[in-house]
Amino acid sequence: MKTYTFYFCCRFFLTGSQKRFFEKLSIYCDKYAEQIPVTFVLGFYVTLVVNRWWNQFVNLPWPDRLMFLISSCVQGRDEYGRMLRRTLMRYVNLTSLLIFRSVSTAVYKRFPTMDHVVGAGFMTRHERKIFDDLKSPHLKYWVPFVWFGNLASKARKEGRIRDSVDLQTMLNEMNKYRSWCSLLFGYDWVGIPLVYTQVVTLAVYTFFFACLIGRQFLDTDQGYQGHDLDLYIPIFTLLQFFFYAGWLKVAEQLINPFGEDDDDFETNWCIDRNLQVSLLAVDEMHMNLPKMERDIYWN
Amino acid sequence: MKTYTFYFCCRFFLTGSQKRFFEKLSIYCDKYAEQIPVTFVLGFYVTLVVNRWWNQFVNLPWPDRLMFLISSCVQGRDEYGRMLRRTLMRYVNLTSLLIFRSVSTAVYKRFPTMDHVVGAGFMTRHERKIFDDLKSPHLKYWVPFVWFGNLASKARKEGRIRDSVDLQTMLNEMNKYRSWCSLLFGYDWVGIPLVYTQVVTLAVYTFFFACLIGRQFLDTDQGYQGHDLDLYIPIFTLLQFFFYAGWLKVAEQLINPFGEDDDDFETNWCIDRNLQVSLLAVDEMHMNLPKMERDIYWN
Amino acid sequence: MKTYTFYFCCRFFLTGSQKRFFEKLSIYCDKYAEQIPVTFVLGFYVTLVVNRWWNQFVNLPWPDRLMFLISSCVQGRDEYGRMLRRTLMRYVNLTSLLIFRSVSTAVYKRFPTMDHVVGAGFMTRHERKIFDDLKSPHLKYWVPFVWFGNLASKARKEGRIRDSVDLQTMLNEMNKYRSWCSLLFGYDWVGIPLVYTQVVTLAVYTFFFACLIGRQFLDTDQGYQGHDLDLYIPIFTLLQFFFYAGWLKVAEQLINPFGEDDDDFETNWCIDRNLQVSLLAVDEMHMNLPKMERDIYWN
Amino acid sequence: MKTYTFYFCCRFFLTGSQKRFFEKLSIYCDKYAEQIPVTFVLGFYVTLVVNRWWNQFVNLPWPDRLMFLISSCVQGRDEYGRMLRRTLMRYVNLTSLLIFRSVSTAVYKRFPTMDHVVGAGFMTRHERKIFDDLKSPHLKYWVPFVWFGNLASKARKEGRIRDSVDLQTMLNEMNKYRSWCSLLFGYDWVGIPLVYTQVVTLAVYTFFFACLIGRQFLDTDQGYQGHDLDLYIPIFTLLQFFFYAGWLKVAEQLINPFGEDDDDFETNWCIDRNLQVSLLAVDEMHMNLPKMERDIYWN
Amino acid sequence: MKTYTFYFCCRFFLTGSQKRFFEKLSIYCDKYAEQIPVTFVLGFYVTLVVNRWWNQFVNLPWPDRLMFLISSCVQGRDEYGRMLRRTLMRYVNLTSLLIFRSVSTAVYKRFPTMDHVVGAGFMTRHERKIFDDLKSPHLKYWVPFVWFGNLASKARKEGRIRDSVDLQTMLNEMNKYRSWCSLLFGYDWVGIPLVYTQVVTLAVYTFFFACLIGRQFLDTDQGYQGHDLDLYIPIFTLLQFFFYAGWLKVAEQLINPFGEDDDDFETNWCIDRNLQVSLLAVDEMHMNLPKMERDIYWN
Repeated sequence: MKTYTFYFCCRFFLTGSQKRFFEKLSIYCDKYAEQIPVTFVLGFYVTLVVNRWWNQFVNLPWPDRLMFLISSCVQGRDEYGRMLRRTLMRYVNLTSLLIFRSVSTAVYKRFPTMDHVVGAGFMTRHERKIFDDLKSPHLKYWVPFVWFGNLASKARKEGRIRDSVDLQTMLNEMNKYRSWCSLLFGYDWVGIPLVYTQVVTLAVYTFFFACLIGRQFLDTDQGYQGHDLDLYIPIFTLLQFFFYAGWLKVAEQLINPFGEDDDDFETNWCIDRNLQVSLLAVDEMHMNLPKMERDIYWN
Repeated sequence: MKTYTFYFCCRFFLTGSQKRFFEKLSIYCDKYAEQIPVTFVLGFYVTLVVNRWWNQFVNLPWPDRLMFLISSCVQGRDEYGRMLRRTLMRYVNLTSLLIFRSVSTAVYKRFPTMDHVVGAGFMTRHERKIFDDLKSPHLKYWVPFVWFGNLASKARKEGRIRDSVDLQTMLNEMNKYRSWCSLLFGYDWVGIPLVYTQVVTLAVYTFFFACLIGRQFLDTDQGYQGHDLDLYIPIFTLLQFFFYAGWLKVAEQLINPFGEDDDDFETNWCIDRNLQVSLLAVDEMHMNLPKMERDIYWN
Repeated sequence: MKTYTFYFCCRFFLTGSQKRFFEKLSIYCDKYAEQIPVTFVLGFYVTLVVNRWWNQFVNLPWPDRLMFLISSCVQGRDEYGRMLRRTLMRYVNLTSLLIFRSVSTAVYKRFPTMDHVVGAGFMTRHERKIFDDLKSPHLKYWVPFVWFGNLASKARKEGRIRDSVDLQTMLNEMNKYRSWCSLLFGYDWVGIPLVYTQVVTLAVYTFFFACLIGRQFLDTDQGYQGHDLDLYIPIFTLLQFFFYAGWLKVAEQLINPFGEDDDDFETNWCIDRNLQVSLLAVDEMHMNLPKMERDIYWN
Repeated sequence: MKTYTFYFCCRFFLTGSQKRFFEKLSIYCDKYAEQIPVTFVLGFYVTLVVNRWWNQFVNLPWPDRLMFLISSCVQGRDEYGRMLRRTLMRYVNLTSLLIFRSVSTAVYKRFPTMDHVVGAGFMTRHERKIFDDLKSPHLKYWVPFVWFGNLASKARKEGRIRDSVDLQTMLNEMNKYRSWCSLLFGYDWVGIPLVYTQVVTLAVYTFFFACLIGRQFLDTDQGYQGHDLDLYIPIFTLLQFFFYAGWLKVAEQLINPFGEDDDDFETNWCIDRNLQVSLLAVDEMHMNLPKMERDIYWN
Repeated sequence: MKTYTFYFCCRFFLTGSQKRFFEKLSIYCDKYAEQIPVTFVLGFYVTLVVNRWWNQFVNLPWPDRLMFLISSCVQGRDEYGRMLRRTLMRYVNLTSLLIFRSVSTAVYKRFPTMDHVVGAGFMTRHERKIFDDLKSPHLKYWVPFVWFGNLASKARKEGRIRDSVDLQTMLNEMNKYRSWCSLLFGYDWVGIPLVYTQVVTLAVYTFFFACLIGRQFLDTDQGYQGHDLDLYIPIFTLLQFFFYAGWLKVAEQLINPFGEDDDDFETNWCIDRNLQVSLLAVDEMHMNLPKMERDIYWN
């Protein structure tokens, strides 16, 4: 709209000599607008951003691999066994929740303090006390991860985990899970170099400013070369605007996928799904198998 | 055809001054058509789409690695052993079938309800009952996968699987299988950002619209620069049309490879092949070895 | 040559007005030839093709990793032990041979029927009988792979393979080997989308056709802008031809590396080398170690 | 500023004929400035640099995976057990410290000699003596890594590590850790080929020099084509300058991320964090588990 | 220099009408020089070459991972134990040496025959005899690799390697090591398709030839458009020459990194370093641990 207003100003409120100057300026802008290599730079930049975004999606931590192992390899349908499996699973979910709180604004809003984490059942009061008692000047999201290892090792000693092969598979899987978490943290911590983003944005906006002035329909009576048509609405400039702005929008939308926009990853949903599903798998479904019978292709 | 009709209109039904205006418009369009960076944008976009498509192909879940392990490591040629191997194999196939139902329209049409899944022999009635009894607001395609783990763990306890090393190799392989499945699901769930596709499509169609008007053979008598030839058929514009439209078609065809087109992955065939082959490998072929003899290069 | 003939026709057999028309056509072609974005499209296409080709090379199945394990971990220098190792190794080679027959025309010509496979010593008569007896509507290249697993598992039961750790390493390695095979099969089965290849070829040939007409040396007397030199041989057009055709040739040569050209992978040589070397390693070299002695840097 | 000064010189201190020559030179420069393919070359170069930079970030060695395993699998809360875990962990940190000293100038400044390493508690005096006694003409950063292996193996013999499965998981993890370290070393050792960097820098600076002369606002009275406007400040040239210089700056800033700039990786912080956190995890947190209790979703 | 001579010829030794023809030729060349897409093709080609080069660097075989395992897991400080570890380590180094001899001209010059390999202490006389006695029409670089496996397996039987877990970790690591070796061999065996290199070189040299003729400063009196300045030295053409030639030089320098140039990988140094360091680690350092003591952060 603003753009449009500006157009009308140019057309009706300039005196003759101002007009002449403006026309020369316009031709000058038009000439140089094409020297700004917007397409190419946007192409490289958007490719970089899309790759980062997809890698973040692929590295979202899902506890399915761990719940599968815990459900299969931690023995005992008694209360102690159930508690063991549930606690291990809770630590897994807690690890990712602590990372998500640093990474995603939506999750941070939902769990602004550790009290909310305790309140939502990801942590018990006793665990929180021990967590707070650990003195460290650094972030402590790795704590539940160490608890997991020690608890699994204790379960192995008590015979709840049959042998070291079972134990190590679980620890390895937990290490993988944590690597996904830290990769997310890494993507959040070290973004695309700011100067790169600035350069691209500068290029796009300079280009539009140049177009705004340079793509006026000039007074056709002056006989400027290539300016013998007056359409009132600079249709192609508008299209180019939509086009480049759309492309830049792709980048802006994907550069931080852990915000609160509609297109961002639904991390809060993930957190709920993961806790619900993983507790179901390791508790209710543990050794709760359908009766084995012949399938319909038997012989 | 429509294009062609449009050309004739322009030539024969416009009056003189309309013609002049149209000619100016045409030159204007021709000039700006070249400023739309169609090639470059299409290049980046098609590369992205082709990579996604190939990754989806590479991540199609094949049960061959699992059937190989189950056939080798789950012991017993009696009915219980056979049933065990067949059931494990069925769970593997069921896991991928449930994912395919979400991902592929062709598979969904074939198995619109769980009844069809049961009817095709991928699930028994009893299994379905347990499946339905699990209360969860989330998708439940991971359920047979947990059954697999628990059944394998039970087989280990009963001595059908010799030791934890054998068991863990199987569980690891199953985890890999499931990761392929979820990656497919992920590709389906989070597509290429819509705005990217829109930008590309907008660019291509704008370009054609501009060409349609801009590449007319103008009245050669008017002496417009570079417009002194009248060929009736704008051969190069048509070729460019085929060219860009063809490239865009590459992208459109590959962007969802799980549809029902001829070029899409034949997921229904995969499902049948996998079930048939894997049951054959774990049942009929289990410990059914050819007699070992000296080969022809012996000494 | 044909091109050259065409040039002379244009120069000497056209009448005046035909010449004038032809000259206008030529200028028109020249103008549009440059709008076909051959370079860019070829760049993306050739990059895609070169990547596929290199991945196929990297995934050629070599049995060296397996022969190393079998030679080290399958015990016994008696005839049964030797036969066991040789048979396992033969199954490995047979798996890749069956894949190569589907993928490579050169290998298919050498082994047109299963009789040739038996004749070359990759399969015994008895194995072939069992192979043929398996009823399946699908390809059966996975059969020797299942035999391998069952035979290894049997060897473990008989104590020829010490324990499950040794066995599982072998099975894992075999699974890797088979994955290479299936990746080759995948590359053969799902090629680059045909429409992509067509678009590129269309672009290149259209470009040449446009150049053929557009890059004539026109009658210098007519004073066409930029056409005041007559060299008889259009040297730069020829160079451009060599250049683009050469680049397209890169793609054509690499798109199917399993043919019979000189530059294709020598699959038949691979097959022979693999069988010869792997039998040598598992049989003659098994536990045939050089006497250990102090090396020259001892102390 | 210098640029600006230069502009004024040209305008006011040149005589008439010098001015004419300068104007011709200017037009000549302007014409060729556009032939230098700065954008494209910068695009490829920056992509290469950004990829290297991100890979270095991803391969920063974090001891979290190892501290998790050591905390879980090295037994004993007595002094010997504690010392064992702390020593293993120290060797891990020492390995990466020695690499960081070669790679990062900031770390080298903090630890210029081995005395500083001993002083900061990463090495004991006795260890240093043994380290110095090893005679080798090559770098010795691998020494603590071999100590780790031997110490872990000794712990296994003494029963502090339960069995070979636990031991091997640890050794494998240590090998991974060291691979990250050597990859960092490799990135430092073999940089981007110098001639590539030179070519890019040459291109950018040549381009600016050409612009400096070529983009003057010439005397509008001379009627040079496209030079009929005099703005005093060459706004678009300045923008292009910011644009390309900004892009080149992205590369320069990322090409060595282990320096002392604000944007470089904070390696000194990493070293401190890793030591503090890993000692905490393997000592204070070892088998110091929160009491297990029912979570709030129990039944 | 030659170029410069050529320039002066053109200027002073041509008669009037020859000059006129030459000027037309020059304008023609200048026009078409810009149609050769040198930048783009060089960009794709250099990217391909740089990737191959870096992959080769990353896959250089370092024995550090293996020496770490052998030092930790092969028991016994007596002479037999020492000999065992040293011999295993020698086989590792021998495997890579044999590959390097095929791949690197520098290494081949240093070890032209197997006698030199024996002389340098990588092989004993007895080993060489067995090596020569193996009848195979194919390369035999895999032989020490099979010896390694069999010797390790023998050590396991004799109790020098505690159990199969230790053994298999070592065999796996050796398999990885050999894969690096064969990848290097693969890069050497199957280069970038020759036609690709030819196309790129052709493009660059054609471009220069066209520039040589096309970028002359023509007689300014003839009033050719854009040729009204005579600088004697074609500064921008020289810069473009340095620029493209520099870029092509990047490729030429990296295409075979195993030569004898200064910038090539120092394979001979690698070979020496690897042998010296690995023998030190497995022999002198085996179980030669610093006394464990409290670190300075204890409590």
